[in-house]
Amino acid sequence: MTFNDPIDRRGTRSSKWDKMEALFGVSAVDGLAMWTADSDYPTAPCVIEALRQAADLGVFGYSWEYPEYLAAVKWWMRNRHGWDVDTDWILTSQGLGNAIALCLDVWSKPGDGAVIFTPVYHEFAAKIKKTGREVVECPLVREGDTYALDLDDAQSRLSGTEKLLIWCSPQNPSGRIWTGDELRAVAGFAARNGLILISDEIHHDLIMPGNSFVPMDIASPGTRANAVYLTAASKTFNIAGQRTGNMIIPDADLRAAMRKRLSTLDYAPSALGVRMIEAAYSPEGADWVDGQIRHLDGNRRLFDDAIASIPGLWSMPLQATYLAWVDFSGAGMDDPEIEKRLRVDARIATSPGVGFGTGGRQFQRFNLATQRYRVEEACNRLREAFSDLQ
Amino acid sequence: MTFNDPIDRRGTRSSKWDKMEALFGVSAVDGLAMWTADSDYPTAPCVIEALRQAADLGVFGYSWEYPEYLAAVKWWMRNRHGWDVDTDWILTSQGLGNAIALCLDVWSKPGDGAVIFTPVYHEFAAKIKKTGREVVECPLVREGDTYALDLDDAQSRLSGTEKLLIWCSPQNPSGRIWTGDELRAVAGFAARNGLILISDEIHHDLIMPGNSFVPMDIASPGTRANAVYLTAASKTFNIAGQRTGNMIIPDADLRAAMRKRLSTLDYAPSALGVRMIEAAYSPEGADWVDGQIRHLDGNRRLFDDAIASIPGLWSMPLQATYLAWVDFSGAGMDDPEIEKRLRVDARIATSPGVGFGTGGRQFQRFNLATQRYRVEEACNRLREAFSDLQ
Repeated sequence: MTFNDPIDRRGTRSSKWDKMEALFGVSAVDGLAMWTADSDYPTAPCVIEALRQAADLGVFGYSWEYPEYLAAVKWWMRNRHGWDVDTDWILTSQGLGNAIALCLDVWSKPGDGAVIFTPVYHEFAAKIKKTGREVVECPLVREGDTYALDLDDAQSRLSGTEKLLIWCSPQNPSGRIWTGDELRAVAGFAARNGLILISDEIHHDLIMPGNSFVPMDIASPGTRANAVYLTAASKTFNIAGQRTGNMIIPDADLRAAMRKRLSTLDYAPSALGVRMIEAAYSPEGADWVDGQIRHLDGNRRLFDDAIASIPGLWSMPLQATYLAWVDFSGAGMDDPEIEKRLRVDARIATSPGVGFGTGGRQFQRFNLATQRYRVEEACNRLREAFSDLQ
Repeated sequence: MTFNDPIDRRGTRSSKWDKMEALFGVSAVDGLAMWTADSDYPTAPCVIEALRQAADLGVFGYSWEYPEYLAAVKWWMRNRHGWDVDTDWILTSQGLGNAIALCLDVWSKPGDGAVIFTPVYHEFAAKIKKTGREVVECPLVREGDTYALDLDDAQSRLSGTEKLLIWCSPQNPSGRIWTGDELRAVAGFAARNGLILISDEIHHDLIMPGNSFVPMDIASPGTRANAVYLTAASKTFNIAGQRTGNMIIPDADLRAAMRKRLSTLDYAPSALGVRMIEAAYSPEGADWVDGQIRHLDGNRRLFDDAIASIPGLWSMPLQATYLAWVDFSGAGMDDPEIEKRLRVDARIATSPGVGFGTGGRQFQRFNLATQRYRVEEACNRLREAFSDLQ
């Protein structure tokens, strides 16, 4: 199986494909699903093999975060990120979204503020609002061809009721990799303001060639007493449906508080979830990820070239993630017109930029984790749908 | 594969087998794990086949409670239990324990009371205490060879701070199936006292020949406005490790409250969990369960005969579940001596009765969901360990 072998995910109980028509009005007949952040190609053979072995045994009783699983997480962080994680620090969540929700539940109460830097992963603000907390939005600033922080501006937006800072690194939707200095600045900002720093690092493995990622804990070990690092194999290995992720919490008190909450909710990971992650976080898994990155890099180049060929459209250079952040503001159209052309004319479902907060208007996020031929098809349809700009 | 084919679960990341020595001091070399309620034989072929199909596709992206899954749950309740469940009523949890925890979270606050009838599934009291609620224990009374309710006594134990009644039907650990009259009496008791009735019916499919089970909602439809019914395929199909169960809530307001909590916690079932349940709740699955019941009935008879042959030991006649509830009080030994003989002499890990609350002292719960040869071996070891009673 390669990353380009055709797979039709329609009818496979895939949210991305099987909910597309209902949610976006994009035809299920020939629509392209480029919204939800999962991939259209199979996971690593070693993960599939672990699942086959589980099927061969056929017994699916209770399991737990067993030592080999914790050792595999530790191995991955050490070998892929140079990050020394103590196995005691590792808790499991139901994935990133659940982990964010749990952090809000444990470390804030309704009415408290949670700081985010926008545009950012739409679920941050959604979860903050849903739980009755206040979104404290600090806009990123455009600097050259990417985003930068303005922490003085951010400071002026705080009212003192804030409890958490929810950070995204590498950044979704921009694909930005933050530098060590930027990470230290953000960690310092959180520390000065008494905020627990929740660092979503779920895209940390998908780093485009020529770039390198620094985990927050390596950039700023001195602030780890107030930090919670969120990771998962879900994007890296396309196993998001298993709803299993990690919360890596070096501080004993923070960890005890989260562990207690997991216990009172009787949370435990699924047995197949931990089995698949154990298999993924291995040398075989690492090789597969390297191949995936080459594939994604090719997709990205193809896509960016096509966008660059359409006057008025611009795609932010992707340092990490498989999520292209496309600026349509130069096309002189409002969001309804942009989305009509994407959904009706091009039959492509994308994530609307407005959902990502301030700075997202006239942007759309495209998921490129698919077969090359689908990216080519998307490019052709975009050129056609916006041909009047030529 | 039959229910008697040998399977060695040691080293398969099974809590039941791989934690046994650490938790009970029962030798991993030749110990018998008869504690945690999962089964030692493979699940139904149709469930394994669904997993193989998922492995063949190899793509494990986001999924949801899709219509075919909900239809399968509805079909099962209708065909196996004569119970008409609207698909709108069906929410998913992370399994029974998580569902109980969520009910405590949604419908009570620290300091509130939760009523249980003991001896009962140890996790009820554990979860009530863990979340800072008060256990209001109402003892069942021994009547003939089983337990009965004393609701006058129960009424006298309430202080007015109680919010929930957590009920178990069929009953764990006694294997008791409640009659329609008893169910109506309990539902009436809950209604009179303004308690939300949480009915754990997770063992409802494992009904021994000659008995029949009545769902609470059929026995007492008039009280459904205050009822939450908990079911799962986890015991029936030995897929507890997938951590997926159902909360069936007919009342729109109760359902909205739980749905909101699931949303604020960003809970969603695992894709493989719903796939496996969809496959299980089918005609093929039903046939397999019928075969399993015949196997369990044979195990039960063998086990009960062995217990009956040991003077001073007595096993409560099992109407449902695969959990034998054994009374050692006639042996003239205290719990430490009983457990020493079980764990050290017989090398059998069982669930100590004291954990099940008042009435549990000098009882032990034995899990019979295993190969026949293991039950035979357990019987031999028990006869040997208690040979001085002969």
